Amino acid sequence: MASNIESLYDALVGKAGAAAVKDMKSDDTTDRLANLVVGSRTYLNGCSRIDLESKVPDKEYFMFKSAAGKTSRPVNLDLYDDDLTRDDIEQVLECDIDGLTPEYITKVIYSCAISYCCSADLLKSSDQKTPGTYFEMLIGHLVSRMLGVNPERQITVPTLDEKITLPTDFVFDLGPDKNRVHLPIKTSTRERVVQVWAHQRVLDGMHGVARFKGVLAVLAETNKQKEKSVTEVCLPNQWMAYQMYIAQMFRVYYLDLPEKYVALKDRYPFIQVKQFGDFFFEVDKIEKSGLAT
Amino acid sequence: MASNIESLYDALVGKAGAAAVKDMKSDDTTDRLANLVVGSRTYLNGCSRIDLESKVPDKEYFMFKSAAGKTSRPVNLDLYDDDLTRDDIEQVLECDIDGLTPEYITKVIYSCAISYCCSADLLKSSDQKTPGTYFEMLIGHLVSRMLGVNPERQITVPTLDEKITLPTDFVFDLGPDKNRVHLPIKTSTRERVVQVWAHQRVLDGMHGVARFKGVLAVLAETNKQKEKSVTEVCLPNQWMAYQMYIAQMFRVYYLDLPEKYVALKDRYPFIQVKQFGDFFFEVDKIEKSGLAT
Repeated sequence: MASNIESLYDALVGKAGAAAVKDMKSDDTTDRLANLVVGSRTYLNGCSRIDLESKVPDKEYFMFKSAAGKTSRPVNLDLYDDDLTRDDIEQVLECDIDGLTPEYITKVIYSCAISYCCSADLLKSSDQKTPGTYFEMLIGHLVSRMLGVNPERQITVPTLDEKITLPTDFVFDLGPDKNRVHLPIKTSTRERVVQVWAHQRVLDGMHGVARFKGVLAVLAETNKQKEKSVTEVCLPNQWMAYQMYIAQMFRVYYLDLPEKYVALKDRYPFIQVKQFGDFFFEVDKIEKSGLAT
Repeated sequence: MASNIESLYDALVGKAGAAAVKDMKSDDTTDRLANLVVGSRTYLNGCSRIDLESKVPDKEYFMFKSAAGKTSRPVNLDLYDDDLTRDDIEQVLECDIDGLTPEYITKVIYSCAISYCCSADLLKSSDQKTPGTYFEMLIGHLVSRMLGVNPERQITVPTLDEKITLPTDFVFDLGPDKNRVHLPIKTSTRERVVQVWAHQRVLDGMHGVARFKGVLAVLAETNKQKEKSVTEVCLPNQWMAYQMYIAQMFRVYYLDLPEKYVALKDRYPFIQVKQFGDFFFEVDKIEKSGLAT
């Protein structure tokens, strides 16, 4: 089973996945993603589930446990849908969203995201890298499909002297008279989140404020404690200071949305934090809105 | 031996170290630091040394190896001084620098820094936290002694609505008509370094540009590869972009100074990266220079 999932992962982002990486928005990438999701879900169906004590209000969590006794990251019970067919999964991965609600889309994508991440937790030893790379590919695929253009991973810095290029998170060039998009993607943020605002600031400094719209996509902020309980690690005061003094992120989307961040929309500097499914219904605002939010 | 070093560490920053943490610049803290340095050096003298293949031009490295077979981080051969007496160490830890050169001071402090870090590498399993905390205390002690004031670790954010405080790196209040100092301290920086510029930007935004002088202190950028070789991980183009577009760090000091960063002083935006011993001879510039560098 491990080797099957590994080869499906490899077909997506490994040596065999060059086509998917190159044309991220393609139907071919949809297929490769769906293969890995279905493979991971089949594997997880053979694992046991253990309820976790949730210290997050109004959310319940469990974890998967392998036959070898390894345990996964926490899974949000309401967001993990056991009944999805391959067709259901492909429909969302293809961005064929007519008639779907933001809530349903969020649930399907959460189920896709967490299934490989949990499989990797169980099958690999202390592997933080492949879940992060997979999650980037999943979100990158959906966003590039909705925007109709593939992302780049480096930008040229305009200087008076020499030409230098910098590695970046995904950036999208939507063409003349539209914004560009800066899309950092994280499985969780914690104290590293200041990087997101700092990179936005570099883009604002180089190309003008809000020439790039900053859109942060995050899986969850859950943390599994030793005593089998789950907490959510949120730093809303820091976010407010970063939004006030470093740069302005246009949107933050979560699959497992923390309530403490949702509340940021109601007080200055009014950071817009939403469920990821909402992205699909406000793409026009990201493409073309200037400085307005 | 392990328990001896652990108790000396605890006397500095653990539960027993409350006095040192509270009055960081005190003679008492000098004593506790010297105890831990001497204890660590005694322990390391009983360990074997293994030469490493250095891929860093003009620098040689070795590592310590314990009887149990564990190995330490790389140690710069020229900077690690075997012949220091306790008096030599205390003299520098007391900042009694009359007649000493920046090179000699750098060497003594490097020897102090690396000795506990290597001991922790050998005695603890995957312990990244105590070396970082120790290094903060070592540098924090020296800088607070030279500035004549202890640091704080949080600041109040001025907002029109409510009062919020943020955790920070060490910040020093030198009194009216002087700069304040923002002192991030890292054993290495890598891709996390953007945090330093981002936090400087938050301070500039809250209190005015250069009200806080940013001074970054780093141990080294060495990386030990599996095949027993040593490289230095430097990202000078990123640093230039951060200095141009996020905020301006006034100084960066290293104990094991990478040549690639020294070169940044010669081209725009002219980042001043120096050996840490130079700090002791330009404290006046940090205390009072406004926007000038």
